Amino acid sequence: MTLKFIALSGTVSVTENLYVYETDGQMMIVDCGVGFPDLEMPGVDLVIPDFSYIVRNKEKLAGIVVSQGHEDHIGALPFLLKEVNAQVWSSPLVTEFLKDKFKDYKVPQVKINTFNPDYGEFNIGPFKLHPFRVTHSVPDTVGFAIDTPAGRVFHVPEHKMDQNPVDGMPFDTQKVKGLAEKPVLFLASDCLGANKPGFAKGERDIEENMFRLVESAPERVLMTAISSNIGRFQQMINVAVKAKRKVVFVGRSIQKKAEIAHNLGYLKYPESLVIAFNQSLALPRRELMFIVSGCYGQVGSSLYRIAMGEHERVSVEEGDRVIFSADPAPPYTKESEDLVIDLLIDKGADVHYYDLNEGLYVSGHGGQEDIVELFNLVKPRYFIPIGGAVRFMHSYKKLAVGAGANPNSVYMLKPGENVIFSDGEAQRGQKIPTREVLVHGLGIGDVGKVVLGDRTVLGKEGIAVVVIRVDSNSRIVGQPKVLSRGFVFEKIEKSLISEAENSLKREITKKTKLNKATIESLTSSYLGRYFFEKTGRRPMVLPLVVEI
Amino acid sequence: MTLKFIALSGTVSVTENLYVYETDGQMMIVDCGVGFPDLEMPGVDLVIPDFSYIVRNKEKLAGIVVSQGHEDHIGALPFLLKEVNAQVWSSPLVTEFLKDKFKDYKVPQVKINTFNPDYGEFNIGPFKLHPFRVTHSVPDTVGFAIDTPAGRVFHVPEHKMDQNPVDGMPFDTQKVKGLAEKPVLFLASDCLGANKPGFAKGERDIEENMFRLVESAPERVLMTAISSNIGRFQQMINVAVKAKRKVVFVGRSIQKKAEIAHNLGYLKYPESLVIAFNQSLALPRRELMFIVSGCYGQVGSSLYRIAMGEHERVSVEEGDRVIFSADPAPPYTKESEDLVIDLLIDKGADVHYYDLNEGLYVSGHGGQEDIVELFNLVKPRYFIPIGGAVRFMHSYKKLAVGAGANPNSVYMLKPGENVIFSDGEAQRGQKIPTREVLVHGLGIGDVGKVVLGDRTVLGKEGIAVVVIRVDSNSRIVGQPKVLSRGFVFEKIEKSLISEAENSLKREITKKTKLNKATIESLTSSYLGRYFFEKTGRRPMVLPLVVEI
Repeated sequence: MTLKFIALSGTVSVTENLYVYETDGQMMIVDCGVGFPDLEMPGVDLVIPDFSYIVRNKEKLAGIVVSQGHEDHIGALPFLLKEVNAQVWSSPLVTEFLKDKFKDYKVPQVKINTFNPDYGEFNIGPFKLHPFRVTHSVPDTVGFAIDTPAGRVFHVPEHKMDQNPVDGMPFDTQKVKGLAEKPVLFLASDCLGANKPGFAKGERDIEENMFRLVESAPERVLMTAISSNIGRFQQMINVAVKAKRKVVFVGRSIQKKAEIAHNLGYLKYPESLVIAFNQSLALPRRELMFIVSGCYGQVGSSLYRIAMGEHERVSVEEGDRVIFSADPAPPYTKESEDLVIDLLIDKGADVHYYDLNEGLYVSGHGGQEDIVELFNLVKPRYFIPIGGAVRFMHSYKKLAVGAGANPNSVYMLKPGENVIFSDGEAQRGQKIPTREVLVHGLGIGDVGKVVLGDRTVLGKEGIAVVVIRVDSNSRIVGQPKVLSRGFVFEKIEKSLISEAENSLKREITKKTKLNKATIESLTSSYLGRYFFEKTGRRPMVLPLVVEI
Repeated sequence: MTLKFIALSGTVSVTENLYVYETDGQMMIVDCGVGFPDLEMPGVDLVIPDFSYIVRNKEKLAGIVVSQGHEDHIGALPFLLKEVNAQVWSSPLVTEFLKDKFKDYKVPQVKINTFNPDYGEFNIGPFKLHPFRVTHSVPDTVGFAIDTPAGRVFHVPEHKMDQNPVDGMPFDTQKVKGLAEKPVLFLASDCLGANKPGFAKGERDIEENMFRLVESAPERVLMTAISSNIGRFQQMINVAVKAKRKVVFVGRSIQKKAEIAHNLGYLKYPESLVIAFNQSLALPRRELMFIVSGCYGQVGSSLYRIAMGEHERVSVEEGDRVIFSADPAPPYTKESEDLVIDLLIDKGADVHYYDLNEGLYVSGHGGQEDIVELFNLVKPRYFIPIGGAVRFMHSYKKLAVGAGANPNSVYMLKPGENVIFSDGEAQRGQKIPTREVLVHGLGIGDVGKVVLGDRTVLGKEGIAVVVIRVDSNSRIVGQPKVLSRGFVFEKIEKSLISEAENSLKREITKKTKLNKATIESLTSSYLGRYFFEKTGRRPMVLPLVVEI
């Protein structure tokens, strides 16, 4: 029996995970995440996988399973579920995240099947899945052993081998060992840490380091981390208890995620510990810890508005201490986090952040040793790096080869590329055409090269709109009128504009036998050159010939 | 006698250095660098210091001295020298860089006085300068002891204490010790490394690490570093000699800088080692080393074009090895370097880069121990951190206080802020107003908030231009016409546009007593809402009412 594994998305950037398993006329999807626009995609909100292959084959779709609660694994589900009907399988915390998300996106009734990550197994069409816990920065993250008609395979989207995580739910080595006793056809696993020597650090030390900083803080403490990092919030809360501070959650996303996790028992605290902002006003500043969203300096986030002095309730003052538990991460750049740090320091806060290396953050992704340990546990015949760009796949391949694998047994797949397994042998299938699907506002996939190219020019050089009135014989009437935006400051540059108008009129008047189209192309090329000569800039020139 | 020290620029970002010393009606400038646009400055080429204070006081200007050859110290000189007349003082390599730059910018005759960094001293107006060598990533970088009427001060823009640099010209500890025997009023010095524990690493190990990679490379080797990093090129050349490879310089900026440095004896190689590209075609690939510009993945650079497969002569093939000796650095982001790395790997190259931590790069900036060692050598009464943003100044202050300084003796200055020294005492002077001066094309300072704000909207949301024809009574004639760019793909969205036109016409026709201005404002608000409802986007709406 053959099995086809398709990397429909998720192997060019570090996000946008979507993998398809196909056998015997049936299809299962693992993960369905969003990606983020790069600098060549101005104005775009999100990037989502190209679903057209799935839509074309939707009658084959047996179901969708997701491995964890981060956006790069679940964020594109609302978009997919508007195009196909399918049930979803997820672990308890992820189920709650999904319900919340589907409400936001107004996704119609979807059946979500919640599985237990610690025991049990479940079927999706011809596939039997055995979930097992892995350590990651959000609880209830799992990997799967999957029984397929072509044999048993492992799919491990993200993992650390940490045996002592904050949530007390370590990588389930025993279960994996047991599941790997059968021969394993392939392992598809996280390659993002393939450049990092050693094991990813454990999370335990962070709490001690945080406590030192919180205990010694003379005034209020503000802590920040990504809002899905429930384990980190537990550590902050533990520190608050020890340091006898009350906790205020600031920011909608952090409040929501914390509430969900608390209700499920993944975030434990005495009810009296967490108070509302208004209650905090009655307490001394040194008895308070604010847990604030916006750790990457995201424009508009709570921390950003606090740093800008624009938050409606919270302000930072001399003597306050701000503790970041986050390294800069895509889609945000170091620059956005640095800006917020500078502004907070400037307001008198003592800020502790990534660059000071005070042990306040570790990545949720495994390092080289975590990856190799998984190789040794699973002992697969074939290897497929997932969840990372080309350079990470390349490093993953080096690790596999270093661990004794045949270089030909490692399949690096770009979006749409796939491998067909038959009788234990692997070969590449024909690539499935995919494109980048960009989401902007309500539009899905309607922004493409032309629109992005125009935006790039408009955003850097601005536009000069030229209205030329003509009579019914295409003879120019009156003066052409130039109106610009984003090009030069017109109030100051009046003479540049009026000289351009005069000069254009002379140029048009010189020519004979013009029509609407030739006036437009003459205007574009003439004014393009004219403005470049005068200003060194190349605004978009948009001629409008109006017959009067 | 009083002395005024003005941080006219250079203390908000890590670039754009410009400091002013003023005493007794005379003024000296130290360094005159460019900065780089941030994400809020679309289309801008460069940021330069605000020269208006200097221009207002130009009769006081005794001269300009520069400390080194990087753009953030010399790049804005052509702009300043178009506004004021002044002589320039610089070290030998920097003099050659300046001559070349002034030719490019067509700066009229400027007298450049070349000083020797090892001995001698020189006067600029009332100031006597004693240069001394410091270790940095470009040769002939110096610091100064400056005798002023208010006493001796030290100005050290960048330094490592490295006693064993590649160029054989270490930080001149003996000279600094001697110069610091007099009481030192203040030290203004580089704070950029104030977050990095320990000493900045020496450069020696890099050569060994490079050699290992070059020697074992089966085919061609491409090496890249920033084009001013002459020391690094010397190391590459040493490696090429040992590994018996010929060297080809690829890229205009790298060829130019290497030629200047070679002519001055700062870059040493046997003439037969460096060959032209055409000569390389006759040699086996494993006897070649290409030294290529574009280490940050700059769009348009040689390495970028090679990675994109668009270079006119050089291509990368399976088996080639590419070695980056550069960490991502402003104004470029990690993303631009990563893109090039991914593309090169994808072409079959084996790429060695920052993330692999193979010891191929070290920063030119001193770390915490370098900074404190300078404190201990100079023993100043006051401290002024320069060349770094707020967070670095803050860390520098902590270092000074940790080394025994009174917190009040550290002056953190933002652009325009200054300190007046009188009888050994310091106090802040009134802030000099400064603004950001943006250069775009030929325009200097003409791009401001309005233009940048428009560009931001245009670049993310695009524009919809609406032509409405009216008669002499402002009654609408015919159909309004919408033309968009960067908003939606018009060929596909024909119905959106035509329905918008119809709907707008109905709206205008409903109203009475309209004039040109009210039609315009009605159109803006109506179509703004209309497009947002239909698309979730907010293009700029530009109404043009044309009377026919």
